[in-house]
Amino acid sequence: MPSTQASAYPLTVVVLAAGKGTRMKSRAPKVLQLLGGRAMLAHVLQVCGRLNPAKLVMVTGHSAPLVNQYVAQHAPALLPTAHCQSVLQEPQNGTGHAAQLAAPELPDDAVVLITMGDVPLVSAEALQAVIGLCDNQRVALLTVSLNDPSGYGRIVRNDQGQIQGIVEHKDATAEQRMIREINSGIMAFPVRLLKPWLRQLDNHNAQQEFYLTDVIAMAVRDGVEVQSHCLSDAQAWQVAGINSPAQLAQLERQYQLMQAHQLLEQGVRLADPTRFDLRAAAGSPLPGSLECGRDVEIDVGCIFSGTVRIGTGSRVSAYCHISQAELGEDTVIQPFTHIDGEQAGVSIGQQGRIGPFARLRPGARLADDVHIGNFVEVKNSSLAQGAKANHLAYLGDAVVGERVNYGAGAITANYDGANKHTTTIEHDVHIGSNSVLVAPVTIGAGSTVGAGSTISKDTPAQSLVVTRAKAITIEGWSRPTKK
Amino acid sequence: MPSTQASAYPLTVVVLAAGKGTRMKSRAPKVLQLLGGRAMLAHVLQVCGRLNPAKLVMVTGHSAPLVNQYVAQHAPALLPTAHCQSVLQEPQNGTGHAAQLAAPELPDDAVVLITMGDVPLVSAEALQAVIGLCDNQRVALLTVSLNDPSGYGRIVRNDQGQIQGIVEHKDATAEQRMIREINSGIMAFPVRLLKPWLRQLDNHNAQQEFYLTDVIAMAVRDGVEVQSHCLSDAQAWQVAGINSPAQLAQLERQYQLMQAHQLLEQGVRLADPTRFDLRAAAGSPLPGSLECGRDVEIDVGCIFSGTVRIGTGSRVSAYCHISQAELGEDTVIQPFTHIDGEQAGVSIGQQGRIGPFARLRPGARLADDVHIGNFVEVKNSSLAQGAKANHLAYLGDAVVGERVNYGAGAITANYDGANKHTTTIEHDVHIGSNSVLVAPVTIGAGSTVGAGSTISKDTPAQSLVVTRAKAITIEGWSRPTKK
Amino acid sequence: MPSTQASAYPLTVVVLAAGKGTRMKSRAPKVLQLLGGRAMLAHVLQVCGRLNPAKLVMVTGHSAPLVNQYVAQHAPALLPTAHCQSVLQEPQNGTGHAAQLAAPELPDDAVVLITMGDVPLVSAEALQAVIGLCDNQRVALLTVSLNDPSGYGRIVRNDQGQIQGIVEHKDATAEQRMIREINSGIMAFPVRLLKPWLRQLDNHNAQQEFYLTDVIAMAVRDGVEVQSHCLSDAQAWQVAGINSPAQLAQLERQYQLMQAHQLLEQGVRLADPTRFDLRAAAGSPLPGSLECGRDVEIDVGCIFSGTVRIGTGSRVSAYCHISQAELGEDTVIQPFTHIDGEQAGVSIGQQGRIGPFARLRPGARLADDVHIGNFVEVKNSSLAQGAKANHLAYLGDAVVGERVNYGAGAITANYDGANKHTTTIEHDVHIGSNSVLVAPVTIGAGSTVGAGSTISKDTPAQSLVVTRAKAITIEGWSRPTKK
Repeated sequence: MPSTQASAYPLTVVVLAAGKGTRMKSRAPKVLQLLGGRAMLAHVLQVCGRLNPAKLVMVTGHSAPLVNQYVAQHAPALLPTAHCQSVLQEPQNGTGHAAQLAAPELPDDAVVLITMGDVPLVSAEALQAVIGLCDNQRVALLTVSLNDPSGYGRIVRNDQGQIQGIVEHKDATAEQRMIREINSGIMAFPVRLLKPWLRQLDNHNAQQEFYLTDVIAMAVRDGVEVQSHCLSDAQAWQVAGINSPAQLAQLERQYQLMQAHQLLEQGVRLADPTRFDLRAAAGSPLPGSLECGRDVEIDVGCIFSGTVRIGTGSRVSAYCHISQAELGEDTVIQPFTHIDGEQAGVSIGQQGRIGPFARLRPGARLADDVHIGNFVEVKNSSLAQGAKANHLAYLGDAVVGERVNYGAGAITANYDGANKHTTTIEHDVHIGSNSVLVAPVTIGAGSTVGAGSTISKDTPAQSLVVTRAKAITIEGWSRPTKK
Repeated sequence: MPSTQASAYPLTVVVLAAGKGTRMKSRAPKVLQLLGGRAMLAHVLQVCGRLNPAKLVMVTGHSAPLVNQYVAQHAPALLPTAHCQSVLQEPQNGTGHAAQLAAPELPDDAVVLITMGDVPLVSAEALQAVIGLCDNQRVALLTVSLNDPSGYGRIVRNDQGQIQGIVEHKDATAEQRMIREINSGIMAFPVRLLKPWLRQLDNHNAQQEFYLTDVIAMAVRDGVEVQSHCLSDAQAWQVAGINSPAQLAQLERQYQLMQAHQLLEQGVRLADPTRFDLRAAAGSPLPGSLECGRDVEIDVGCIFSGTVRIGTGSRVSAYCHISQAELGEDTVIQPFTHIDGEQAGVSIGQQGRIGPFARLRPGARLADDVHIGNFVEVKNSSLAQGAKANHLAYLGDAVVGERVNYGAGAITANYDGANKHTTTIEHDVHIGSNSVLVAPVTIGAGSTVGAGSTISKDTPAQSLVVTRAKAITIEGWSRPTKK
Repeated sequence: MPSTQASAYPLTVVVLAAGKGTRMKSRAPKVLQLLGGRAMLAHVLQVCGRLNPAKLVMVTGHSAPLVNQYVAQHAPALLPTAHCQSVLQEPQNGTGHAAQLAAPELPDDAVVLITMGDVPLVSAEALQAVIGLCDNQRVALLTVSLNDPSGYGRIVRNDQGQIQGIVEHKDATAEQRMIREINSGIMAFPVRLLKPWLRQLDNHNAQQEFYLTDVIAMAVRDGVEVQSHCLSDAQAWQVAGINSPAQLAQLERQYQLMQAHQLLEQGVRLADPTRFDLRAAAGSPLPGSLECGRDVEIDVGCIFSGTVRIGTGSRVSAYCHISQAELGEDTVIQPFTHIDGEQAGVSIGQQGRIGPFARLRPGARLADDVHIGNFVEVKNSSLAQGAKANHLAYLGDAVVGERVNYGAGAITANYDGANKHTTTIEHDVHIGSNSVLVAPVTIGAGSTVGAGSTISKDTPAQSLVVTRAKAITIEGWSRPTKK
């Protein structure tokens, strides 16, 4: 989605992120819990970033230094237009109290959007609609029409349909309890109107907290129009807040299903949208990204992370993990393949055939027609066109030529206990089974290494090289017997 | 289900398969998209085949050559009774237009059943019921009673319950919108009645298309009875058409769940019916088939394809893939085992113990009591009773005798870079760890190959054979240091 | 949950377990089918055990010897307070008949709770509530209020809300069919009242069976109060009986979801609660147990069995199997890792890094900072702090010192064909790639084994040891050509 247009008035966003999240039972602050592999707060900052705010005010409390550090580190990428500030809410005396603390940072000519750090999946469209309704003259609420609104504060309207206030479930009449529209807590205000209302809030209630929702009644009292942008029940997950691991797991599934359906819409053929995961790269504030050509098939249970590109006609079989990798066209990834490009990336050319039970690690660069088979690990190595390592092998820090056949059980001894060295295998070499290539070493073009050899010196091209002791045969030998 | 009885009148089936399927965003025509591992069209042809039609007329359009080629190749297996023809609908001017094009191919004494190439899961029972209602004298519709019929054409009846027509959602009165019975598009007609009606169709509508459903009103006008066979809401997936990858994924899950429940009914114990897949062999038009003895347990996430038989008391652990294989009784397949028999098949005897992380490839023939352990690959090899290859090994093109112990890291070097050769390991042989057997080679009965040996010549029975250089020890040696 | 308090009157539990379970299509009796990895009967006995009964009477029929043997073997652990008896119901003439056969074993001063061997998930709380309602003076029923009670016997009450009887669905009036409260079959009685009622039962009904529910009418007739403890529709799975593999699979999922939510409540972060399994150890009557510290993350598709403990901050990646193991803090288990401690257990220290594609078998003892990488198997071996085996290796019966680097493709040849021997690798040793250590053997501290060596004699400390034949080079060698 493109960024929305700049408005006539500046936008400030306030993110309420002071809560402890006790029910998470975690050492980390709630807003830094991961959803889709990145902090909830990254979701919130990114969606706010799409509104092009001039300013963002974090209201932090529990673990404020960690939260502020996260914002300082990642806001430039997520929210490039905004100047970010933080205010400390200590103790946490309610949403109204939080807004009071943020108030000095709000420019009087701005619209302020107040949202929550633990409501990660609200869409930019919904937020933009709320801001549009506000239009620097109204109070605007993001609401949702629930099939079962029990327990939530209801949006009460008069006979003309104008919002009159929010009534808590416990205070609602039987008739009011029939109302399905409930408040999400996300609101937009003209700052010039909000500030005096905040000064009028009190905490004369059971919890002795200051409630931001009390300003709605003040707006009505003062003749300021209150409007709502109302999501459907099917969109209610957008405003779902996370207070427990169970809610986090539920929203994780919703998020993954949403991503799966975006891919289906693009023509990607997912065998089971409920068994699909696409996540941020570890530590990244940016969402996972899976770009697919035409006729890409993804079987059940696959997990993608970071940025992954898959070429037209390629197929990813069941239970593969693919992270930070680029796959060419018509490539087949067989089941149980683990591809992790982390920092250095992994690339696979066209007509590749990888797996099952293969592992490609950072820096694996596979040209077209490369085959990597079962129980084979490739790390920081390039394989030229048509090279094959089909069984039980290790290639680390290697440069492998075209059409090389790297035999079963072959190993590059790339580590001398202190340093890593390069193994060079030139074009058309055949490496025999269970051989060891002790790096640094070069195997000359077209040569053959005999099975079971350990090669520690460069070999000439077009040669056969073998290290093998003479066989000793003891006939009539008796094997040990069981003690 | 047995084939239905031949009727008094010949049956012709018309399959509408001209659509492009734009929303699939695929290079392949929609009806060749895979469901349960085989083309949707294979499902349709097979269910039609169970009706024993004398003739089948494909109406093709987009990618007609590909579709016609698929029919030509696979109809003999799926639809043995029918003479298959094809007519080209170009451009596609609606279902009525398609029927008009097919009309010249319909024998006047026949009943015609009109169905769709993108409605893959309708049951033969439902189609047979529609044909029975038609009985060469009525119009018969396959309908479904939806809990939420919104958007669909409703079946309108008079006070006597007789069908009067089909009214589109947008044209329906409030009262008509309360009707839950909707049209599936699948219908049967006496050909002698249908032909004149088809000639009367017009395209005076917004889409300027000819609608087959318009003949219903003509039938009512002409006093021909219209009856329906009505599926329940729970059976609605039978008439679900596929227009997008999301719908394909949804129907795939429905299909897999249906297969899972058939197996549960037979006594197979599936740990999770929602994490189970049974698919056609690659390229096959026939469905996957899983035949199980008593007390077979299948854990979560397993995928079967082609024809698989599992003997009484055997267990398949989580996340296994099994294709074209036969497993004996009381065999245990441990997690992450990949068995693919493709053309040559895989067979496992009784009391086998395979995996975890084992891979059996085509031509693996395992007798009773064979153990194949972790990170072991077996290809085109036979293992006699009691043979074991428990760790990190490769057996290719090998004949392995009874009670052989094939050590960890042992490899058959079966490929000399040009040709494959056989390794013969006779009864009671022990192959030491990290040995290589360079084929062609025979290891004599009862002999032992010492660890780390490379054996390229036949060895005598009852002998110990070893290739091992003398150990060189350099005391006080300093390992390289980190640069 | 703590055990409930001893009551003023002794408690006897009768478990009805005579049914054949024909629809299970199994050779094993129904109550011994596995749910969560242990017999349904184990669930029933354990929940009864929490009621501290003085006596338990099994009513067995089909496969009675197997069922009685299971009870004899496992009741001491599951039901320590109870004296267990068994009566044979042969033939099975209904629940009333079963109760008649149990009657001679019921002490007259006791309360009897009658429950079913194929209703495995009822909670102790629900059973205790029923016993409390009975209080040795009333009849008490466990009932459930179903959203769709169709087909079930309804609980009929008079205008004062007093239970008047149970009416079968087929005998119910239209008004009675509106009743949502249905009978679960679980009941409690004062024995002194039940016995005369049982003598009055008859089998004058279509099935010619004796129905225990007929005593309800007798109680009402005799002026004995009948009360019910009524579960909600959401709790209906507690009283779900299992008659088919489909029902077993459905309840298995319910059970697993319940376990997943208990872990979420404790703060464990499950990526997908619907793709999580925790099971009893094979053969154990006790449930699987997963104890986690803070901030433990468990990715999709993991399977746990037996007793597993995971330290704070540790992470289990997707598709891991972990059984009978203990993991320290901040340890990462990468995908596709198979850890099975069976009898001997597996332990992993802090900051461990295991997998992907690793297998730890019984007796693997890993200290802190140990790394086990891809395609590595460890069995009955200890690895001291900082040891690493990163690729394609086997460690069996080994004692591995601190900071040892065990190279790719290295194997301990621990089995001489008859006996297992120990390999000792002292501190700071480096084992070269594709080496074999032929046990019994000791590699002295700080020494290095050259790549491709086979070591069958102890090596001195601080040395380099290598077995390697001289390389033979044949220049201009021609590889075989394809025949």
